[in-house]
Amino acid sequence: MTGTTAFLTDRYELTMVDAALRAGTAHRRSVFEVFARSLPNGRRYGVVAGTGRMLDAIRDFRFGDEELGWLERENVVTPATLAWLADYRFTGTVHGYREGEPFFPNSPILVLEGGFAETVLLETVILSILNHDSAVAAAAARMVSVADGRPLSEMGSRRTGEVSAVAASRAAYIAGFSATSNLEAGRAWGVPTMGTAAHAFTLLHDSEEQAFRAQVEALGPGTTLLVDTYDVRQGVETAVRVAGTGLGAVRLDSGDLPALVAEVRAQLDGLGATGTRITVTNDLDEATIGALRAAPVDSYGVGTSLVTGSGAPTAGMVYKLVAHVDDDGAWVPVAKRSASKASVGGRKRAWRQTDARGTAIAEIVRTRGLPPERARELLVPLVVDGAVDERWTGPAGVTAARAHHAYAMGELPREALRIGRSDEAGIPTLID
Amino acid sequence: MTGTTAFLTDRYELTMVDAALRAGTAHRRSVFEVFARSLPNGRRYGVVAGTGRMLDAIRDFRFGDEELGWLERENVVTPATLAWLADYRFTGTVHGYREGEPFFPNSPILVLEGGFAETVLLETVILSILNHDSAVAAAAARMVSVADGRPLSEMGSRRTGEVSAVAASRAAYIAGFSATSNLEAGRAWGVPTMGTAAHAFTLLHDSEEQAFRAQVEALGPGTTLLVDTYDVRQGVETAVRVAGTGLGAVRLDSGDLPALVAEVRAQLDGLGATGTRITVTNDLDEATIGALRAAPVDSYGVGTSLVTGSGAPTAGMVYKLVAHVDDDGAWVPVAKRSASKASVGGRKRAWRQTDARGTAIAEIVRTRGLPPERARELLVPLVVDGAVDERWTGPAGVTAARAHHAYAMGELPREALRIGRSDEAGIPTLID
Repeated sequence: MTGTTAFLTDRYELTMVDAALRAGTAHRRSVFEVFARSLPNGRRYGVVAGTGRMLDAIRDFRFGDEELGWLERENVVTPATLAWLADYRFTGTVHGYREGEPFFPNSPILVLEGGFAETVLLETVILSILNHDSAVAAAAARMVSVADGRPLSEMGSRRTGEVSAVAASRAAYIAGFSATSNLEAGRAWGVPTMGTAAHAFTLLHDSEEQAFRAQVEALGPGTTLLVDTYDVRQGVETAVRVAGTGLGAVRLDSGDLPALVAEVRAQLDGLGATGTRITVTNDLDEATIGALRAAPVDSYGVGTSLVTGSGAPTAGMVYKLVAHVDDDGAWVPVAKRSASKASVGGRKRAWRQTDARGTAIAEIVRTRGLPPERARELLVPLVVDGAVDERWTGPAGVTAARAHHAYAMGELPREALRIGRSDEAGIPTLID
Repeated sequence: MTGTTAFLTDRYELTMVDAALRAGTAHRRSVFEVFARSLPNGRRYGVVAGTGRMLDAIRDFRFGDEELGWLERENVVTPATLAWLADYRFTGTVHGYREGEPFFPNSPILVLEGGFAETVLLETVILSILNHDSAVAAAAARMVSVADGRPLSEMGSRRTGEVSAVAASRAAYIAGFSATSNLEAGRAWGVPTMGTAAHAFTLLHDSEEQAFRAQVEALGPGTTLLVDTYDVRQGVETAVRVAGTGLGAVRLDSGDLPALVAEVRAQLDGLGATGTRITVTNDLDEATIGALRAAPVDSYGVGTSLVTGSGAPTAGMVYKLVAHVDDDGAWVPVAKRSASKASVGGRKRAWRQTDARGTAIAEIVRTRGLPPERARELLVPLVVDGAVDERWTGPAGVTAARAHHAYAMGELPREALRIGRSDEAGIPTLID
């Protein structure tokens, strides 16, 4: 079945369904919750991303003849379970934090309600998407905040799986990046694309000048010329000679950037190219972007560290059963009890509480009771009785998520945005 | 165009083609090389993986109406370039290290020859696949070597992008893992799949005993029961009572494993379940697997650290133009010269040289000269004049890669397999 997501799944989801169907417990109404026990590496906040992709994956989670035939041949489940899977579509309801929303330890990022079997089946693919995309978005948000208004472009496709690369571009854009090198992210999600040439283009030609002329003829003088293939000083001079003082930008992809950027700026100004921008792209991360704050950089291109989550390549979210109905129709809150992975049972609601000036002061998570004062409810409906709310999907969903991220980041206290390690999240999570 | 890989690409690959077509340099015969300047985190070897997927991606790299229409609307390239892309298929030749082969700094992992434009276009997608899959394979190989013959299963799908998860399962299997939780890796690549139940299954039922009975009825007493939802000691007792002493295995997913495993082994033996195996799955990596060497563990399930490359989520490979033909038809070796990213120009061959006992002693890389003595040639043809060698693709390619990996790891000196940090690779790379 082309395009199905049903096999992007762990085998045990199916064997649990199989056993529960046989035991008569498969359709017990259940609530699952997605949350992260902690934030990685002393960070102060995480960022929810992947929601729009997740909704597509839920909609496309269907078992076709190819999947059913394979499950039968491999003897994964019984014929009765195969019959149930053949008719599978998710009919439950999902509430979630909006895409782009910051989150904190134990924020109930997603709350899913449905029959046990239909809901447990979605565990693996939902976590794959949210854990990956949120890891990239968190790294991106930190880079955006340290870049202090200078634009950032995502250029990491070659440093991550070829399909994850598209998701990474999308997540970075939601978290405030301006553009991506990845064409599919442009086509599928409407992310602005950018990029001009690599060192190979210069090396192909008989001289740097010949290469620059070829590029300016094709792309115009507003293009970005990569000036560090041979000697940077010579490269800048040639670039301005070829393109004129209207040259769009020069790119530096190697060297000791803070010093080099200042030299190149002075050289460009001396040549009259005062409007030519400088973009840097050499293995940047939050720290190196921070170190360039005082340098006359105009924009950054970030690759490896962004798409690998800058030291935290997965967001650590888990998908846990927190409540189910028993045979008498009563809701039973449940939670693992042993050892280090205890969790809080019961269906939760969540609010971000602000002070009188609108600054966030706490994440309030409750299994009962009234909404707190001055608080924005965080869980919004994403799927209702199996119907996906299409507003959160496609390029429009990305645009909405990007706008919401900017709004919600502005709500956080300034100290929550610091990028240094901390023992405490940006705001406390209060669970009762 | 369904299934094309042509947009899993950076925009600048297309703008370079556009400029080179206009300049008349697009079809200069060129050689590109894929290599890694260094190994991450003081490792002693890397492992090539992704080759079979890369060959699929090269074969499927075609521009359909949808791609061409988007490029036209977005004004990425000129109409002449669109016409050239419409007919695009790669017609060049690719030699590469066999999938599963260990590699070292500056090993010429892939050598591609073709026209500049047709070959530069493949850069992004080739690096995405090789960098991701090789990162996972390197982590997997290290875990396999520290597990000392005990089987390992890949269970990390939920901790990485949903499509990268399939590639990660495949790469881990090539590097010696025994099985995966991921169904698509089973269906598409023939990797054996495994898995039985999560904590949610136990929590769904009115008691642990009810859950275990349901599982044993569906999956038989040979199944693996997860015994740490409530109290491990009670869980083990219930498991053996329900399944009998023929219980296949118990799984521990939390707690202080070295101590806990010994207690559970003693308890199982005391209950007469001497053949019941113990599998552990709690955030394992090379270090924690090593720390369990003395414990009576029968198998490991590894998730996060495997699919994220255990601290090195990308392999750091680059794709560089190393030679091209000039207007006189002569080959010109080329290399970037400035700053920290210098490389060695010219088309290379590579051999793994062994001593008289068959142990590898050096990686020999030459741009000219005769083959060294007692040396296995490392570059094999993967694509010849545009035709993919199908032996390296599909499930059969995976089987071949897994066998070759085992052979080639056995060729390395024992000290090359140590997992501690080192300043030196497992064998030296000698370039001349």
